[in-house]
Amino acid sequence: MRLKEVLEEALRLAKPPPREEEELKETVNLLLRETRAEAEKTEGAVNVSLEGSAAKGTWVKGRAEADIFIHFEPTVPKERMEREIVELGFRVLERLKGRPRLMYADHPYVEGRVGEVTVNIVACYRVEPPGWLSATDRTPYHTRYVLERLGAEQRDQVRLLKAFMLGCGVYGAEIKVRGFSGYLAELLILHYGSFPGLVEAASKWKPPIILDLEGHYRSAREAAEAFPGQPLVVIDPVDRARNVAAAVAEERLAEFILASKLFLRSPSLRFFGAGPKPRRPSLTQLARGRNILAVSFRTGVKKPPDVLWGELRRSGEGVKRALERLGFQVYRSGAWTDEEKECLLVYELAYLRLPPTRLHRGPPAHHPNALQFIEKWVRSRERAAGPWVEGMRLYVLRREGMTDAVKLLKREVLEGRVALARGLIDEIKQAKITTQVTRLARNRRLQRYLREFLSARPTYL
Amino acid sequence: MRLKEVLEEALRLAKPPPREEEELKETVNLLLRETRAEAEKTEGAVNVSLEGSAAKGTWVKGRAEADIFIHFEPTVPKERMEREIVELGFRVLERLKGRPRLMYADHPYVEGRVGEVTVNIVACYRVEPPGWLSATDRTPYHTRYVLERLGAEQRDQVRLLKAFMLGCGVYGAEIKVRGFSGYLAELLILHYGSFPGLVEAASKWKPPIILDLEGHYRSAREAAEAFPGQPLVVIDPVDRARNVAAAVAEERLAEFILASKLFLRSPSLRFFGAGPKPRRPSLTQLARGRNILAVSFRTGVKKPPDVLWGELRRSGEGVKRALERLGFQVYRSGAWTDEEKECLLVYELAYLRLPPTRLHRGPPAHHPNALQFIEKWVRSRERAAGPWVEGMRLYVLRREGMTDAVKLLKREVLEGRVALARGLIDEIKQAKITTQVTRLARNRRLQRYLREFLSARPTYL
Repeated sequence: MRLKEVLEEALRLAKPPPREEEELKETVNLLLRETRAEAEKTEGAVNVSLEGSAAKGTWVKGRAEADIFIHFEPTVPKERMEREIVELGFRVLERLKGRPRLMYADHPYVEGRVGEVTVNIVACYRVEPPGWLSATDRTPYHTRYVLERLGAEQRDQVRLLKAFMLGCGVYGAEIKVRGFSGYLAELLILHYGSFPGLVEAASKWKPPIILDLEGHYRSAREAAEAFPGQPLVVIDPVDRARNVAAAVAEERLAEFILASKLFLRSPSLRFFGAGPKPRRPSLTQLARGRNILAVSFRTGVKKPPDVLWGELRRSGEGVKRALERLGFQVYRSGAWTDEEKECLLVYELAYLRLPPTRLHRGPPAHHPNALQFIEKWVRSRERAAGPWVEGMRLYVLRREGMTDAVKLLKREVLEGRVALARGLIDEIKQAKITTQVTRLARNRRLQRYLREFLSARPTYL
Repeated sequence: MRLKEVLEEALRLAKPPPREEEELKETVNLLLRETRAEAEKTEGAVNVSLEGSAAKGTWVKGRAEADIFIHFEPTVPKERMEREIVELGFRVLERLKGRPRLMYADHPYVEGRVGEVTVNIVACYRVEPPGWLSATDRTPYHTRYVLERLGAEQRDQVRLLKAFMLGCGVYGAEIKVRGFSGYLAELLILHYGSFPGLVEAASKWKPPIILDLEGHYRSAREAAEAFPGQPLVVIDPVDRARNVAAAVAEERLAEFILASKLFLRSPSLRFFGAGPKPRRPSLTQLARGRNILAVSFRTGVKKPPDVLWGELRRSGEGVKRALERLGFQVYRSGAWTDEEKECLLVYELAYLRLPPTRLHRGPPAHHPNALQFIEKWVRSRERAAGPWVEGMRLYVLRREGMTDAVKLLKREVLEGRVALARGLIDEIKQAKITTQVTRLARNRRLQRYLREFLSARPTYL
């Protein structure tokens, strides 16, 4: 297909039909009415507003979301505001049968679902820039900034971009993804004018990329110096001290650059997650002859996804470092959760066993400790060979007692030598550690994740 | 045992009894007479002399050696001198039933055995220092230098030192050992006065060690600068431009330092290769659970030991580099030959198989070659997983076709990708490559070597 056709079809898939727009509008009105009634009873709550993609008309078909913000006086202490928003959010959503649940990003908020619409009820302070008191205070200014600048045409370009980012797995600022937020997508369209314009530019990006839409800094260089080491810097138009892309992992940026190149070379609906899916080999086929180690466990307490994903990533990093410290080469690692109960940390290793012996380097022969080293090792039961001299240095070959990755990792975990997130220590101590990943696929989603992990290749390729 | 007792007993073992001295003297006289008769018939041969340990009275009991030097006029071309010495040496030794054989160090000479005495018939030029024309021209000056300075007491100290160096495996300048020559041992005794004095000093050596007996240089520093990177520098008293210890491998120096420390801490006849031998585990016990790879072959042509050992070491180094290039971690390596026919290169590896997959690093996602990398690998049958992004970079996991060390090395050798000494290429192409070293021990000496290699530990420990 040619680029134009692909874009037309992709937009048809991404743009909500009038009925979806209608339904969202009705749900939003209902929510605003109910929330305002509750806010009036709440001391210090001074306003209720709609923010986010619903306010800006930039949501993607089938992903309608209403962000309802309650603005508090700056005099309200944070603890009280947080308590109020949780109670208020639960009351409103329960009344609308919205199955409320507590969420947490930098701050607590309440999520629910009314009809086809995902609802977030969020608190912020009514402040003037740059007097921010909480992480959400900028949002109303973001909404206003985008609304004032984004034309109807460009709203569709934002939808195309979001659908593309979703299709390529780089959309979403949540910890699970560490990708591009909706606001960042809107700023990119504002800056480059259109989706093809952005993709064209991104295909040539060489990080660091610096965008300063409002010219808050005198030069890109000055802006870059304000955010050292960050591969993508998009200065927030409403706050010169903030990088809107701060949460974008360098992997997601690189994947976006790569997807842009590949898309331009051969445009396809696959980049938008549409069209025929490539057939993937079975889990058994994928795992054949490879050395996979998985840590599978269940969470005891239910927690907000961002919290759970954060704990999973930190624990995953800790297990990876432990494996490396034990002497295993870790090629790749992954983490997965159904966000309810099931959790998985998964690793691909060069070997599942350590070598039977290991080289142990001693001091040089002329070093004062040389005799001590020799005396220690000559008597040691762990010695397989040596001590001998190579170069000027002493060596011995040590026999490994335990060489099995599963047993070694189990011991490290049980003895508390693995840096795990505190919230998962007990669960991981009881985890099943196995190299038989095909037997782990208890449910479809886990199976799908394992196939993704093992093929390690974007769907659009 | 206390130091004094050990030294007394060691000297008893190292000092030849009067009868051995007598026999050597008679053999030397016989040799000198026969060689002089031959030399008189040789144009350009102007003198015959006895050099080496027999001349200086420093040989170790049971190791009597007569170095007969024929001095040529400097006008005799080298090629002719070399031809003459070989022919002359063969004639003399055949007449004395000395089983002559051609040897080669830097120059050809003839070795044989008359009674209990090893005989070397060597050519040199009659020159004045420093007008050296060949590598052997300094020898008569070495003999004179030592004879003029070494007292009867000190001759015994040299014998003690040589016996100690023999016991610790560091004696001999030949390529097999790359250790201390007899002349070097004599200079060390001259410098330190006695064997205990030397051992005391050596136990505290920290390389580089600089000895300049005749003060040819203004300072140790100036001498060190003349021989950069050499761990042991002993300026030749008869030639300031030569380091007598140039052939000493740093391993031998380190082992000598170490043996000195250990000997002083607990003196024992074991350091002189005497006393009860420690019991060593069997070959099967030593090899259990270890990853050993051996290249076993026979030499086609008989060659002088120094030539064969040189070829073995170079080929061994080449095989080691090939194994490392293939991806194997080589802990240790060894080489052995009976100097007749049987040869062995042996390696201890971390694993005998490569991992089933290997990480293959691509360019960064933003690099112009990124698409090329992706297109190549997406189609490749070698791909196990990927391409994926980590950091900003592309990776794939490649499936290894062949993982077995023996098969991989065989292929490398047959396809000429291993840097082997030219004289052994054909032999090594037909070598038996095996991981079953216990089955290799066809003869006792090979078995002994393999046990030494596997225990990798000096006998005096």
